[in-house]
Amino acid sequence: MEPDFSPLAEFLGDEFDGYLISADGSDSNQLYLSGFDAPDPYTTLYTPEGTHLLVSTLEYGRAKKESRAATVSRLSDYDYMAKVAENPHVVAKAKTVAEFVADHGVETLAVPEDFPLGVADALRDEGVSIEAETDDVLTTIRAVKDDDEVEYIHDAQDANEASMQAAEDLIRAADIADDGMLRYEGEPLTSERVKEEIEVTLLRHGCALDETIVACGADAADPHNRGSGPLYANESIIIDIFPRDKETKYNGDMTRTFVKGEPSAKIREWFDLTEEAFHAALDAVEPGATGEDVHDAVCDVYEAAGENTLRADQSAETGFIHSTGHGIGLDVHELPHVSQHGEELKPGHVITIEPGLYDPDVGGVRIEDLVVVTEDGYENLTEYPVELVVE
Amino acid sequence: MEPDFSPLAEFLGDEFDGYLISADGSDSNQLYLSGFDAPDPYTTLYTPEGTHLLVSTLEYGRAKKESRAATVSRLSDYDYMAKVAENPHVVAKAKTVAEFVADHGVETLAVPEDFPLGVADALRDEGVSIEAETDDVLTTIRAVKDDDEVEYIHDAQDANEASMQAAEDLIRAADIADDGMLRYEGEPLTSERVKEEIEVTLLRHGCALDETIVACGADAADPHNRGSGPLYANESIIIDIFPRDKETKYNGDMTRTFVKGEPSAKIREWFDLTEEAFHAALDAVEPGATGEDVHDAVCDVYEAAGENTLRADQSAETGFIHSTGHGIGLDVHELPHVSQHGEELKPGHVITIEPGLYDPDVGGVRIEDLVVVTEDGYENLTEYPVELVVE
Repeated sequence: MEPDFSPLAEFLGDEFDGYLISADGSDSNQLYLSGFDAPDPYTTLYTPEGTHLLVSTLEYGRAKKESRAATVSRLSDYDYMAKVAENPHVVAKAKTVAEFVADHGVETLAVPEDFPLGVADALRDEGVSIEAETDDVLTTIRAVKDDDEVEYIHDAQDANEASMQAAEDLIRAADIADDGMLRYEGEPLTSERVKEEIEVTLLRHGCALDETIVACGADAADPHNRGSGPLYANESIIIDIFPRDKETKYNGDMTRTFVKGEPSAKIREWFDLTEEAFHAALDAVEPGATGEDVHDAVCDVYEAAGENTLRADQSAETGFIHSTGHGIGLDVHELPHVSQHGEELKPGHVITIEPGLYDPDVGGVRIEDLVVVTEDGYENLTEYPVELVVE
Repeated sequence: MEPDFSPLAEFLGDEFDGYLISADGSDSNQLYLSGFDAPDPYTTLYTPEGTHLLVSTLEYGRAKKESRAATVSRLSDYDYMAKVAENPHVVAKAKTVAEFVADHGVETLAVPEDFPLGVADALRDEGVSIEAETDDVLTTIRAVKDDDEVEYIHDAQDANEASMQAAEDLIRAADIADDGMLRYEGEPLTSERVKEEIEVTLLRHGCALDETIVACGADAADPHNRGSGPLYANESIIIDIFPRDKETKYNGDMTRTFVKGEPSAKIREWFDLTEEAFHAALDAVEPGATGEDVHDAVCDVYEAAGENTLRADQSAETGFIHSTGHGIGLDVHELPHVSQHGEELKPGHVITIEPGLYDPDVGGVRIEDLVVVTEDGYENLTEYPVELVVE
C-alpha cells in the first residue's frame, strides 16, 4: 500500500513549495517518504505533484527500480565533483541541492526538525527558504499504520515471542548453586549468555538484533541498564526485547519479568501491582482517549498503592520513573506519546504499554505488551503469558 | 585512554564559547564526546574547561557513573515538563538547553553539521548564537585512532574473518546441481542462508550484525545490492561484511569475491586486475600521501587496462564506480576520504582499501582489507587470504 501523503500536501499549503529530507535510509522519515533505503545520505523532495530523489551515481540504478519517486537525479547531473573541488563538502552539497530543488520549481521548503543544520544554513546562503516544522507532520502520518504495517509489526512481535521463550527456557533449565547463582551446563548463566540466545533466535526469525536488556537485581532497578554478569535466583530478572524485522524494517517490543526460585514478598507485591496497572492502562486504550489518559491510569494505580511516580515528583529516582509507553513502527520510539501530554489515540496507532517499578534496594519489575488501537478499543499483538515465577 | 580534545578547544578559540551536540548514543560524535550511550537524544556541552551533560531523569544515575562529563544535569532541573506543557516539544527543549548552556557561561556555540535544525533555530530564537562547523573538527579528531581504538577495530576484524571463513566453508561444502545452482543439505544455498551463517558467527564473537552483502551474478554488479536468492556456480559471489563490536562499538570491514566452480575468463581477468589495483593502493598508503593519491593508484591500474572509472567519467555505471575506501571507526564510513579530494593520511588513520569492477553482463569483483596508517607506511589488520576459486 502507498502511504497517504495528503496531510503533508495540506500542511505545505501556500506557505511551502515542498518538503525536503537529507538523510540515509536509517532515518525512518527518509525511508518512509522515499520508499528507498541506502547507507549514505541522499535527498528526497516531496511536492504535491510528485516525489523526486537526488542520489549518488552508485545508487542511481537501484533508486530508479526501488524507490517510489517520480524522478531520480544524480549528483553528477549537477556537476557535484566540480563543486566539491572548490567548496567544503557541505557547501558543495547545498549548491547541488539548491539547483535540484530549483529544477522542480521549489523555492520554499519545510524540513523535519532533525534536518542537518549545516546543509540548511548553506541552502539559505544559496537563497533557498527553509523552515523546520514543529508540527510533526510526517511522523504523525507515520504513526497511523495501515493493515500491512500492523502485520509487519505483528510478525516482528511473533519473532520476539520466540526469543522470549528461548530466554525463559534457558532460565528454567538452569540450576541454582549454593550461592544462589544460576548455572547452565556447568557454567554461570549470565546476562550475556541469555542475550546471545535471544539474538540468535531473532536472527533465525529474520530479525536484526538491536540492544537487548537482560538485567538482574540492582541492574534491573535502572530501566535502561542492559544488564551484565551472572543471574541469581530469587531476584527479579527483567528481559526487554525490541527486534527489527530485517526485511520490512518494522519493530516489535516486549518485556517480561522473571524470578527463578522464590520472589521476595516485595517483588511479588510489585509484580501484582504492575499487572494491575498494566490492565488499567489497556482498559484506557481506545480512539479518542489520549496517551496521557493511558499514562494517568497507570499513575493512579501506583500512587493509590503509595508508590512514587514521575507524575507526582518529576525528579523521582525510584518508583514508576518512565513513560507508560510509546508509539512503535519503523522507529522503536515514535508517535504517539503514551505519557504526560500524550496525544489523542487514533485507529491504526500501534503503542506499547509498559508500566514498571524500580528501586536499587528491591530490583525492578516491568510488564510490556504491544497493541494496535482499533475503531472500538485495541487489539493486543502480544500473546506471551504474564507470569513471574519460572519453575 | 581519554581522547585529546585540544584541537576542539583550539577550534573554538575566541569565536565560540562551547561545542554542543544533541543526539542519541547511536551518533558517533555524541558517543565519542560524551563517553556515554543512551537510546534517546541527550545534550553534551564541551567547553575548554570541561564537558557537561543534560539528560533525562531516567539516564541521570547511569550518566553520572559512565560518562566522561564533569557535571550531569537533568531536564527536570530546568522544569522541562512545565515548558512542554506550554510549548511544542522542540521549543521546550530549546528553552531548557538555553538555560543549561547559560548556566555554564556559554553564549556562542559551534555544533556539528548534522545538528538538528529545529533545535538550532529554536535556540537562536532564545538568543543563543549557533553555527554549524564545516571544518569536520570532531570527526577529524575521531579519525586518528589511539592504540586502544586500533585494537578494538582489529578485534572486530578478527570476528569478521571468522564469519568470512564460515561463509566460505558453506560455499565449499555446497554441491552444484545440474542447472548450476548451489545446494547445501538438500536445499538451494541462498544469499539469505549464507548471511545467516555470517551473522550467527558474528554474534558468537560479540559483534552486532549490520547489513551484510552476499551478492551473486548480476546482483554483484551493483556495489550496494545486498543480494538475495540462490547462489550459482561459475559466477562471482561478492561477500562484504562490516560488523560492529557490541562492547566497544568499533567496526570492521572486509570483502572477498568467490567463485564456486570455474570462473569465466573475464571474471578471472578482472580479479587479477583488481588484486593488482589493490596492491597498488596499499603501496601508496603512507603518512603524507593523500586519500586521493591512494585512489589515483587504483584508477591508474584500471584505466591503463582499459576499464572505465568514475575519475574518467563521473556518470559511469560500469567499471570502477565507487571510492577506493573510507576511514572506519565508530562509524563504518568516516574520515579520511580515500577518494577524489581525499585528505592527507596521518598515523592512526584506519582505512579500507576496496577496489572493484562491476558490469551487469559480467558480474562484480571486489577485494577489501582494512589497514592502519603507521609512522612509516601501514599495518594490515586483515589476515584473510585473497583467493577467487573455492574448490
